[in-house]
Amino acid sequence: MKKILFYCLLLPSLSVSAQQNLVKYVKPIIGTQKMGHTYPGATVPFGSVQLSPDTDTLSYELNGKYNGDVYKYCAGYKYEDKTIVGFSHTHFSGTGHSDLGDFLIMPTQGKLQLNPGVASNPKSGFRSAFSHDNEVAEAGYYKVKLDDNNITAEMTATTRVGMHQYTFPKSEQSHVILDLMSGIYNYDDKTVWTYVRVVNDTLITGYRQTNGWARTRTVYFAMSFSKPFKSYGQKNFEPSQVYKGFWRKFDQTKNFPEIAGKRIRMYFDFSTEENEKVKIKFALSPVSQDNALENMRAEAPGWDFEKVKQQAQATWNTELNKIKVETSEDDKINFYTAMYHAFINPTNYSDVNGQYKGLDQNVHQANGFTNYTTFSLWDTYRALHPFFNIMQPSRNNDMVKSMMAHYDQSTLKMLPVWSHYANDNWCMSGYHSVSVVADAIIKGVYNGDANQALDACITTANHRSYEGIGEYIDKGYIAAERSGTSVSNTLEYAYDDWCIAQMAKKLNRTAVYQEFSKRSANWKNVFDKSIGFMRPKMADGSFKKDFDALSTHGQGFIEGNTWNYSFFVPHDPVSMIAEMGGKQKVASRLDSLFTMHLPDIFFADTEDITREGIIGGYVHGNEPAHHVAYLYNWIDQSWKTQERVRMILKMQYKPTPDGLGGNDDCGQMSAWYMFSSLGFYPVSPGSDEYSLGSPAVKSAALTLENGKTFNIEAINQSDKNVYVQKVLLNGKPLTTHTIKHADITSGGKLTFYMSSKPTKK
Amino acid sequence: MKKILFYCLLLPSLSVSAQQNLVKYVKPIIGTQKMGHTYPGATVPFGSVQLSPDTDTLSYELNGKYNGDVYKYCAGYKYEDKTIVGFSHTHFSGTGHSDLGDFLIMPTQGKLQLNPGVASNPKSGFRSAFSHDNEVAEAGYYKVKLDDNNITAEMTATTRVGMHQYTFPKSEQSHVILDLMSGIYNYDDKTVWTYVRVVNDTLITGYRQTNGWARTRTVYFAMSFSKPFKSYGQKNFEPSQVYKGFWRKFDQTKNFPEIAGKRIRMYFDFSTEENEKVKIKFALSPVSQDNALENMRAEAPGWDFEKVKQQAQATWNTELNKIKVETSEDDKINFYTAMYHAFINPTNYSDVNGQYKGLDQNVHQANGFTNYTTFSLWDTYRALHPFFNIMQPSRNNDMVKSMMAHYDQSTLKMLPVWSHYANDNWCMSGYHSVSVVADAIIKGVYNGDANQALDACITTANHRSYEGIGEYIDKGYIAAERSGTSVSNTLEYAYDDWCIAQMAKKLNRTAVYQEFSKRSANWKNVFDKSIGFMRPKMADGSFKKDFDALSTHGQGFIEGNTWNYSFFVPHDPVSMIAEMGGKQKVASRLDSLFTMHLPDIFFADTEDITREGIIGGYVHGNEPAHHVAYLYNWIDQSWKTQERVRMILKMQYKPTPDGLGGNDDCGQMSAWYMFSSLGFYPVSPGSDEYSLGSPAVKSAALTLENGKTFNIEAINQSDKNVYVQKVLLNGKPLTTHTIKHADITSGGKLTFYMSSKPTKK
Repeated sequence: MKKILFYCLLLPSLSVSAQQNLVKYVKPIIGTQKMGHTYPGATVPFGSVQLSPDTDTLSYELNGKYNGDVYKYCAGYKYEDKTIVGFSHTHFSGTGHSDLGDFLIMPTQGKLQLNPGVASNPKSGFRSAFSHDNEVAEAGYYKVKLDDNNITAEMTATTRVGMHQYTFPKSEQSHVILDLMSGIYNYDDKTVWTYVRVVNDTLITGYRQTNGWARTRTVYFAMSFSKPFKSYGQKNFEPSQVYKGFWRKFDQTKNFPEIAGKRIRMYFDFSTEENEKVKIKFALSPVSQDNALENMRAEAPGWDFEKVKQQAQATWNTELNKIKVETSEDDKINFYTAMYHAFINPTNYSDVNGQYKGLDQNVHQANGFTNYTTFSLWDTYRALHPFFNIMQPSRNNDMVKSMMAHYDQSTLKMLPVWSHYANDNWCMSGYHSVSVVADAIIKGVYNGDANQALDACITTANHRSYEGIGEYIDKGYIAAERSGTSVSNTLEYAYDDWCIAQMAKKLNRTAVYQEFSKRSANWKNVFDKSIGFMRPKMADGSFKKDFDALSTHGQGFIEGNTWNYSFFVPHDPVSMIAEMGGKQKVASRLDSLFTMHLPDIFFADTEDITREGIIGGYVHGNEPAHHVAYLYNWIDQSWKTQERVRMILKMQYKPTPDGLGGNDDCGQMSAWYMFSSLGFYPVSPGSDEYSLGSPAVKSAALTLENGKTFNIEAINQSDKNVYVQKVLLNGKPLTTHTIKHADITSGGKLTFYMSSKPTKK
Repeated sequence: MKKILFYCLLLPSLSVSAQQNLVKYVKPIIGTQKMGHTYPGATVPFGSVQLSPDTDTLSYELNGKYNGDVYKYCAGYKYEDKTIVGFSHTHFSGTGHSDLGDFLIMPTQGKLQLNPGVASNPKSGFRSAFSHDNEVAEAGYYKVKLDDNNITAEMTATTRVGMHQYTFPKSEQSHVILDLMSGIYNYDDKTVWTYVRVVNDTLITGYRQTNGWARTRTVYFAMSFSKPFKSYGQKNFEPSQVYKGFWRKFDQTKNFPEIAGKRIRMYFDFSTEENEKVKIKFALSPVSQDNALENMRAEAPGWDFEKVKQQAQATWNTELNKIKVETSEDDKINFYTAMYHAFINPTNYSDVNGQYKGLDQNVHQANGFTNYTTFSLWDTYRALHPFFNIMQPSRNNDMVKSMMAHYDQSTLKMLPVWSHYANDNWCMSGYHSVSVVADAIIKGVYNGDANQALDACITTANHRSYEGIGEYIDKGYIAAERSGTSVSNTLEYAYDDWCIAQMAKKLNRTAVYQEFSKRSANWKNVFDKSIGFMRPKMADGSFKKDFDALSTHGQGFIEGNTWNYSFFVPHDPVSMIAEMGGKQKVASRLDSLFTMHLPDIFFADTEDITREGIIGGYVHGNEPAHHVAYLYNWIDQSWKTQERVRMILKMQYKPTPDGLGGNDDCGQMSAWYMFSSLGFYPVSPGSDEYSLGSPAVKSAALTLENGKTFNIEAINQSDKNVYVQKVLLNGKPLTTHTIKHADITSGGKLTFYMSSKPTKK
């Protein structure tokens, strides 16, 4: 069933005439400057291949030594850079940690150079200068002129295949470099092994194994040229391997088809006529060379680059047309680019035959689902997966199934924390898989065995040896002595526990409900009433002395300070407000958060964001406060939610390369944008409610998978009319600040009446 | 069909009562001293597992640095050593180059030590002192007392599973070490990657990937304990990996079940009662952890060590009973140990489900055959595969099919040269696969597509870029300037080409027959009539000046000098004799070879043999002259063949640890022993003829797979009666010095009449 769905997506929809051309609003270049960490290259929705230029990955300049700047190249491409090293096939979108960057390809001409050279002198190697004037980045398509040799590079993709098209000047010495040692997060030489077979004069297969952020990772490939190469060769840059084994029997540097080693760069030689196009299809597989080849044959059988490009863009257009918004041209760019970025991750991690590599490094067959990877869950549980539950329920169902498969394959018996490519990298805190599972179960999206899923959540949440869980269970909090992030961990566990309780409630598992409801109140244990803030608590029950409420460093929190984290009780704002001393006190606290002047010194401590990622003391560039603007709804000041949300939308999202104030984080920032633009937000995933804000669009039509349509209209919408006078659901006035998930999935209409004056009620 | 056969082999034969106990004559310890390079551990016929003690592999003492002595530890065990480091699961038998040694296990007690320590002070690490007095090495069973902690170690095996049984003294601190970084040929740190899952408190699975003599090699495992361990842990000896990734989230050193890295040693803790036996089953797979587990469940479902041992020995006994010899007790030991060594390699390289990893690193299904690896073809084409064509035709058929599969998976389009574990290491010269293929086709053993096999042979023989083949084809010889082994290569190619011609003749492919018959005469191009020796020829057609006929160094030969190699025209002794100036000249040359005094300086140049491996100038410890003693048959001096053969049998094979004068070479030395002991030898594999010598047995009964029996009787046999007066085949006197393959496979009787006086005719 999945396969049929998949092939349908590849074909231009029959009703394409009814579709708008929304691909034109997608600007993949947004976020490629500063901290957005997006990439400009070609991919299809949730595609396995992300074929994109790398302007550097640091190892080139610094000979593989780590200098911290590896962070800068999380997506391989920095808008500020002046040279392109090549085009590689796998990229994270918007992460704050790096990996991937597999199989870098670069077309060159003239004297063969097998070193990339340095950015300050691109002619010193195979890299090339380029200009943004000669660059086109669209959904599913990327083009750039490589100035050094006047070669035009174009690329597009299917789910598992990257397609390259290089237009060469006339030369007897045209080359394509295949760099198998390049990679992102390449410091300390993450390439473990490489194996390549030159099957014939157009086909190459092999694999590359890395020990990067993913500890044990292998990517298999099949590479096909549109015309035979004249000759080929390789250089092994690992001195200890050069004379090993059978080098004495063969000249392995030239036209030798069986290649293996740790640091290998290959090249393929061509004669080209003026403007001759040499094309490459590059298929990936998590399982085997054979599967990579099968993927290529299934998804990209021909050599018509334009057709593959059109298919890629038609696929994107079909996805984008699921929401038709009316708004300004700039905001359409913001909206559809956000939708584009939201629909990149998690990525398909299975072959056309359904096989994939599991966390246990065994090959598995995905029966009845598509297997996904790249779960940046600390980020994406907040808004991205809830957004999927509305707009991509089938895929989110499969994502939960992928997480359950991960759990089944885990000897630790834990759901993923931050997983990619058959590994968990254990990045960030919490066990937020349970939020994603709960949200899918509560909203009726998950069609697997819910009790089994709940059991996996419980087992994960009771893994005593994981990041203080044992102490958290015993004492109700993590002691400050034990962990540098004792408070944020306690808060996140408490929220996650509430998610488990909600599932248990739905499944009538009373004991579990009671146990985890109790645990969900553990946030109170790290709340210091004397100062009104969350605060690290020592093992003896006293609060940490010398506490700095503004600093994000060493104060018990991860990616935030207590000013932001003290509001992290998304599942029980009412109790939180009571603990904080009531609505008035919370109101002034929230106001201060958004308006305070945060000295630069505190910004310097804050990871992953630009200076512009902060509004007052509110940090939007990181995730922990993403729900905070909506909390005014709980203190009878919804007009401030409306005002703040519109302000954040304006300040934090711009249709420019530096348009994102922080890491997009696999679509979480983008999902926040879409939810908030549409006028509501999932403050507490795991509940079936959304809290209302202020829509930024004039109207929106959401076409759901069930065939229903949910319409949003903002009457009197304008940049100044940010306040909501009243809201009608299907013509009836809403009396709360929430709508239910079923209100959306049943189809219908949400009408906001906008005004320039707040309705203070 | 294969599977059924396999399971039958595991069961004690129903006709076991008719069988003799021949296992008692097998002394695996023979050849473990000096240059034999055999191992004393447990294996079953052609088994994937060779579970054997490693007394060192050099990396321990020398911190991974190569000092040349890695050669000494080809089989992991040296009889001269006083300590055992542990027991690993894969070993070559008798090779002159090393690899393998995977998954070293060692039981210890007391304070945990994760370093092996040094031989001079075994208490400095987990290794232990041992004594040969407390050592039992039998076919399929090995036992030793480890003195340091008074632990008795026993081991046995099935095809794919090694079974350990350790008898501990009472202790709260008993340990089993699993060393995943140890290996043979470990200099330069051949371990590429290791992955381990502790599935539960008795089951561990994982894999180990190496870059040794096999360039790209992975062995998967499943390990099961007979009782749960109390706790476990690991140490990663690669400093750069210790703080990587998720170390900050977990204490991975203790009870952490997901382990990966480059240099890992694990340990498992037990409390043991006095004399408590802790057993381990350790299954291997070339394909996956899942397959390893399936192999374990299929082959070793229970925990009865004695039963597995009895099965292993019953399997050996069934094989050994295929030839029943009457001879002295010492010679029975020599004979059955030779048979044992001959039936170790090539090894089964497939799972019980038929899957295996191919040369292309893809997983393949062996349809209709068992896949084998470890083809030491330069050695084994001579007598081992011909021996299989008599005694193991089904297996040899599968071996040829395995070679054909290798060819199909080869991007170079070459049959194996020296292959093991999905790699070709390209060791030694020639393309002797073609001899094995030809011998199997000529003798009617190969039931695959013979024309396809011939095509593979032709393509291999025409691979111009391989070791001078292009020049050989163009000029009829390899020029001395091009290669240090120009003469031996030319001679070996000429013989191999004759093999191709024989196949072509049988298959009526006249053009191929003519082409390769012509090529088979190329040996003449390197024969210097002026001195009567093979001699390096320069590109200009002149012979190399400053030629030293005794030296094996830099004279154009590999593992031999021209005194030995000048006789290497096994396919056409008649022409060779004519070129050499006739029978008289050859007679005196042969006499000189066997009686000359070779100065020690020449021995120093000769690889792989002890001083005792040489008789006069005849080198039996290496292979090129293995047929030479039989050449007297072609110059009407068969009595000298008889005399020499009996002398070699006596001098080169002894029932002692130092009983082999050179590397056993995967059974080639042993196959020579068996053939010669039985009274005939395949001088030119690829022909259907055997040349007669002098039997050393009183009688022998060969039970063939086709149900027929071939009997050999030596009337008046004694140590002095080495001369053959007459030979009857099925009662009729033989008029030539040959018998045909069909004479054997039809069943029948060969009767030698022995005498102390030569019959000079």
